[in-house]
Amino acid sequence: MNEFELIRRHFTQATPNAVLGVGDDAAIVRPSPGHDLHVSVDMLVAGRHFFPDVDPEALGHKTLAVNLSDMAAMGATPRWAVLALALPQLDGAWVEAFARGFFGLAAQHGVSVIGGDTTRGPLTLSVTIFGETPQGQALRRDAAQAGDDIWVSGELGLAAAALQQRLGRLDLALPPECRRQLEWPQPRVALGRALLGIAHAALDISDGFAADLHHILDRSACGAEVWLDALPTHPALHGARAQLLSCIAAGGDDYELCFTASPARADAVLAAARQAGVAVTKVGRIVAEPGLRLLNGQGAAVTLERLGYDHFA
Amino acid sequence: MNEFELIRRHFTQATPNAVLGVGDDAAIVRPSPGHDLHVSVDMLVAGRHFFPDVDPEALGHKTLAVNLSDMAAMGATPRWAVLALALPQLDGAWVEAFARGFFGLAAQHGVSVIGGDTTRGPLTLSVTIFGETPQGQALRRDAAQAGDDIWVSGELGLAAAALQQRLGRLDLALPPECRRQLEWPQPRVALGRALLGIAHAALDISDGFAADLHHILDRSACGAEVWLDALPTHPALHGARAQLLSCIAAGGDDYELCFTASPARADAVLAAARQAGVAVTKVGRIVAEPGLRLLNGQGAAVTLERLGYDHFA
Repeated sequence: MNEFELIRRHFTQATPNAVLGVGDDAAIVRPSPGHDLHVSVDMLVAGRHFFPDVDPEALGHKTLAVNLSDMAAMGATPRWAVLALALPQLDGAWVEAFARGFFGLAAQHGVSVIGGDTTRGPLTLSVTIFGETPQGQALRRDAAQAGDDIWVSGELGLAAAALQQRLGRLDLALPPECRRQLEWPQPRVALGRALLGIAHAALDISDGFAADLHHILDRSACGAEVWLDALPTHPALHGARAQLLSCIAAGGDDYELCFTASPARADAVLAAARQAGVAVTKVGRIVAEPGLRLLNGQGAAVTLERLGYDHFA
Repeated sequence: MNEFELIRRHFTQATPNAVLGVGDDAAIVRPSPGHDLHVSVDMLVAGRHFFPDVDPEALGHKTLAVNLSDMAAMGATPRWAVLALALPQLDGAWVEAFARGFFGLAAQHGVSVIGGDTTRGPLTLSVTIFGETPQGQALRRDAAQAGDDIWVSGELGLAAAALQQRLGRLDLALPPECRRQLEWPQPRVALGRALLGIAHAALDISDGFAADLHHILDRSACGAEVWLDALPTHPALHGARAQLLSCIAAGGDDYELCFTASPARADAVLAAARQAGVAVTKVGRIVAEPGLRLLNGQGAAVTLERLGYDHFA
């Protein structure tokens, strides 16, 4: 099978919401009038973002999930994606399983995969995703206001705990949800959309809660107090909270949303979360004074050794 | 310097035609009303698409140029791009030179670089580019009609000859334009735009003239006759035409346009080329019968050993 046949067989699927799909020099889409177009790109490299022996179907899912999570963080409705991948060799079964994971999640979210590029090289995946919001309504990182509540969706630290265990750095019985969160993250697209007009600032937690919250504080020129005991995690991990604090507060790979909203909108936040079928937890508040203060149960400031993932550290 | 500082310093530049540029979960742009949005992605891998020791400024230029060439092939006006790159290490001088080449060409074409992702890994570059045409006017591969003239822009085979020489497979004095074409290709954006409403089908020649022309024939369900002696190349290479035939007709990396147009529009084609400042040459014609017939000066059919580049061959 040559390159063109491989691409055609696995990566060319129906593109109902495109004018022109795969097969020309460019795909053609028609953005919705009165909407802003959101664009985000992520690159995943074997041995850095995933284990080379990972289940290819899970990898296909996660490759798109991390991009959908960026759309969720803006409150955008994802519509189109393109996929570029470098593969060390042509392995039909691997490519088929990867495509199953990738296109399966795309179909769940009504996303058309409108283009791609395949080449030989060290296993590397790059997805660019496109979504839409009504003009001017996006959830941006620079919109937090002093007095806002800080919320997070779902549970934190599960994926990081699974990764630490896989690396032999954590000796603890973990619930199966940890590995599932690491390999099959569920992007919070419905929650992001439901928060339009309710939340102020938002982002998705990919490098760790504390590091990512810093991005909101930097862009919004404000500070925050966070109650570490309030950070939500899996019930089975409560007994090991102290041991897992760095996973929960700074672990990365959560793909949950962190957002701020006026305390007056707390009921609307909870209603949006119910509508989206996702739990949300209030974990702190935005303050005018710059800096992030992490507080323990006694209200004392806590310093974390590392705040998040630096790809070149 | 950590990852975030590196990215900020070199890859965050003004984005005048974006609502929101680098620094959030997604960039936000506002597509032009009444226009179609064109999207294309290309991935370049060290050791496959370029020599690892290539001048980083030239690499930055070429990384964007091959994407601009896809927009040119659609007749689209390029507007935005995102860049994902994996780097083996943080080398400030390398990154600065790469960014100079990339952003320099972007500025020439009024393209805003609205987002990106940087990670550690084997040197890999992935660009997604966005352009616009008035709705329904794009130059597509499926629009060739029997009786059309086949045209190519510029000169063919220069980059392929330079590559063969660099690989030690060609012992021939080459004009400096060959290496320049390989390292600093000039995408034919102005020509593509000028051909809107004049040309029928179009694409850019990246994998070799014959292989790429096959894509037009496949998508348009037609065939072609091509006069090999008419294929344009550099005057200094005329004496070695026979030796260089595979470079000229099937070499790849030309980034010239190949397009078809009604013979009745030949004067309009020539006027568009003059307006764009690019030479164009008529090299054959579209016929109803499927298949590509390459004819020599005596009108006899010629078979080429290989038609184009297969990344997994």
